[in-house]
Amino acid sequence: MPAPERQVHLNLFIFGSGHHKAAWRHPDSPAERMGDIGYYEELARTAERGCLDAVFFADGHAAGAVAEGPWWFLEPLTALAAMARATERIGLVSTVSSTFYTPFHAARMLASLDHISGGRVGWNVVTSMFDTEARNHGYEAMPAHEERYARAEEFVDVVLRLWDSWGDTALRHDREGVFADPGLVRPVHHRGEHFRVDGPLNVPRPPQGHPVLFQAGASEQGRALAARRAEAIYSVAYDLAGAQEYYRDLKSRIRRAGRDPRSVAIMPGLVAYVGSTEEEARAKQRELDMLLPVEESLRQLGMFVEQDCTGWDLDGPVPELPPLEEFTGPKGRYATVLRIIESERPTVRQLLGRLAAGGGHRTVVGTPEQIADRITEWVDDEGADGFNLMPPSLPGGIEDFVDHVVPVLQKRGRFRREYETRTLRGHLGLERPASPL
Amino acid sequence: MPAPERQVHLNLFIFGSGHHKAAWRHPDSPAERMGDIGYYEELARTAERGCLDAVFFADGHAAGAVAEGPWWFLEPLTALAAMARATERIGLVSTVSSTFYTPFHAARMLASLDHISGGRVGWNVVTSMFDTEARNHGYEAMPAHEERYARAEEFVDVVLRLWDSWGDTALRHDREGVFADPGLVRPVHHRGEHFRVDGPLNVPRPPQGHPVLFQAGASEQGRALAARRAEAIYSVAYDLAGAQEYYRDLKSRIRRAGRDPRSVAIMPGLVAYVGSTEEEARAKQRELDMLLPVEESLRQLGMFVEQDCTGWDLDGPVPELPPLEEFTGPKGRYATVLRIIESERPTVRQLLGRLAAGGGHRTVVGTPEQIADRITEWVDDEGADGFNLMPPSLPGGIEDFVDHVVPVLQKRGRFRREYETRTLRGHLGLERPASPL
Repeated sequence: MPAPERQVHLNLFIFGSGHHKAAWRHPDSPAERMGDIGYYEELARTAERGCLDAVFFADGHAAGAVAEGPWWFLEPLTALAAMARATERIGLVSTVSSTFYTPFHAARMLASLDHISGGRVGWNVVTSMFDTEARNHGYEAMPAHEERYARAEEFVDVVLRLWDSWGDTALRHDREGVFADPGLVRPVHHRGEHFRVDGPLNVPRPPQGHPVLFQAGASEQGRALAARRAEAIYSVAYDLAGAQEYYRDLKSRIRRAGRDPRSVAIMPGLVAYVGSTEEEARAKQRELDMLLPVEESLRQLGMFVEQDCTGWDLDGPVPELPPLEEFTGPKGRYATVLRIIESERPTVRQLLGRLAAGGGHRTVVGTPEQIADRITEWVDDEGADGFNLMPPSLPGGIEDFVDHVVPVLQKRGRFRREYETRTLRGHLGLERPASPL
Repeated sequence: MPAPERQVHLNLFIFGSGHHKAAWRHPDSPAERMGDIGYYEELARTAERGCLDAVFFADGHAAGAVAEGPWWFLEPLTALAAMARATERIGLVSTVSSTFYTPFHAARMLASLDHISGGRVGWNVVTSMFDTEARNHGYEAMPAHEERYARAEEFVDVVLRLWDSWGDTALRHDREGVFADPGLVRPVHHRGEHFRVDGPLNVPRPPQGHPVLFQAGASEQGRALAARRAEAIYSVAYDLAGAQEYYRDLKSRIRRAGRDPRSVAIMPGLVAYVGSTEEEARAKQRELDMLLPVEESLRQLGMFVEQDCTGWDLDGPVPELPPLEEFTGPKGRYATVLRIIESERPTVRQLLGRLAAGGGHRTVVGTPEQIADRITEWVDDEGADGFNLMPPSLPGGIEDFVDHVVPVLQKRGRFRREYETRTLRGHLGLERPASPL
């Protein structure tokens, strides 16, 4: 009997009116609803209708270029608390920065949210990136990468210890005795290089024991943290070869850290344009690309490639660019540009569209069957355990996915038809960490 | 024509299963539901049924004596986000400590909550008190009172500037132009003694302009901050004389600060035992007092009065105590003990009960009419503009109040019969601060 085919994990990465920068410019976009919690609740309910593992919020601590689109609006922890009450089963993942919070705040808010949601919370640990963010929280500039990760390592350790500072059975509600057993509520007495935290937490142990730890480490230190701590990983993978390299490396690091690599789902971002025909899907992509403000986009592209692009023919092929090794500016984004040109041979406008929607993330355009194929291929070929869906436009992009792609995956036996558990930990097949008290 | 009688303002101060320390020990108490957001939603809906101005959450950053009752459980900002979606009109006031948060976090979370709730949020500014809390956030001990208030002054200034960093009309959603007008989203470039914050906030201006500022200043510095910034005040007043002294002092400070004293509601705490007869109300009080664990309570009382109380006759009068000036221990709590003995002539058990429910706060026991009388007397005699209700037990205490006391106040024309506005600012009769941009 062949082994049952591996189940796919899927999150909805919620971002404004979609991951394509021009999505809000569409006449039917929900641009006016970016501050309306009802909008986010509807997205979560749509994702839950599709039995997705979780909704996922990124986060940033600076306003960004407000002219060019909705960057941030509602703060994720408060938004997810409301969304928890509009849904019943789907997981709720919030990004929380280890650079800007204290471990006590993070542990407490995530624990509170885990109680509110009945055990559906995930924490995407990030160290943040931009000086503009640092300058909103008292720093002159962002601490160096190495310093941020050293802090993050200690931060995560303390948060886990705070969640464990109440035993699972500490609450007694014994009306003639104790409300909670003081012997099962213990200080953590942490003294580290970055933090002093006495504990215990002022929230009893979360329903999941620990909310699920997500991480998106790409750097050496990020991968090391992920290997030691992450229970699910959001990654960036442009093509299968790159995805497999990352997948192999992370799974092997997880194994070396003494953990079971099968238990940690690696979920690259996926930008999917879904149509009932391939042509319809391409038309959707074209429609969004056409909404990009051309001058601004060419100006930005000019910065990435360090030349003047303003005269480029939008509907012609991209002019030849120097190879990566000859390029003297920041290489990451330039490498993405070269890779898109090489593998997709786009027109200039298509290139602008690709950069505007997901950039270095995998992008697929096609019918529900084609997209389901692309998803299962990577899972079968050990490039991914699932995907963090980054619909180019919302809410349409997730409605299409849930109504048309999910049923194909279900028919193929690759995705749940209903939730089998009530917690995010359950959806991801993760064990609940035992209480040390 | 006589001036219309002044309207009363009422908040529900939500605290566990009630403000009486033994409330959770009652067989019918919701002790098992302290982590169940549905419980808090029900409380908020009850308060909303009574047209109360707001629900109010205190907050603390240390676990407290977990054996003796539910101190903290859900974190207020996350809990109130969920409660915002279970209610439509009632205000939602969260305590946020200026000592433990950064101004950017506080401004952002409160702004997000104001968007989520459609303009119903209040911020109770506190500087926190206990070393156990400080040691959860990196301090060795609590910064000195003066230092905390200096930080709080700067903190509030920065938060207000961050809320104002987006103009009211900044959002344009102009699909062929800008999402937001960059000219109406401006950095704050704050450089102060305690904070460096560049801004702008990454949340557009809150629906109320500024969420309503609550403060509970009793010290000289607390009163100064309240006079300059508070838009509503939660105070402690044991009797009318003390209430009037505070009321006169604060209103005059507010006037001297160049603000309209009538616009700032002063709301002392009120512990009300409501019964259909006075005897029934007293029986409710007695029932809770009987639930107090005697040994522990006598031990605590012994610490307050610095003598061994364990042999005291519970149902006899309180033995004579030395006058305040001869007492060498901490005077605040001792003064409360003396005041209760002098004015109420309680038995030892009654004294324990009074200390266990509100302590120095005003306590009333009686029929709905009697309680309505006590409320309007203070408002008419300029001791209060309303009250922060601290029901000894929940949910019963607020159900009784809403079903029986509120209708009396309404019949007398002293309390709204329905909400006339949709924002907390509206309920409190406060103007919406104009956008400086």
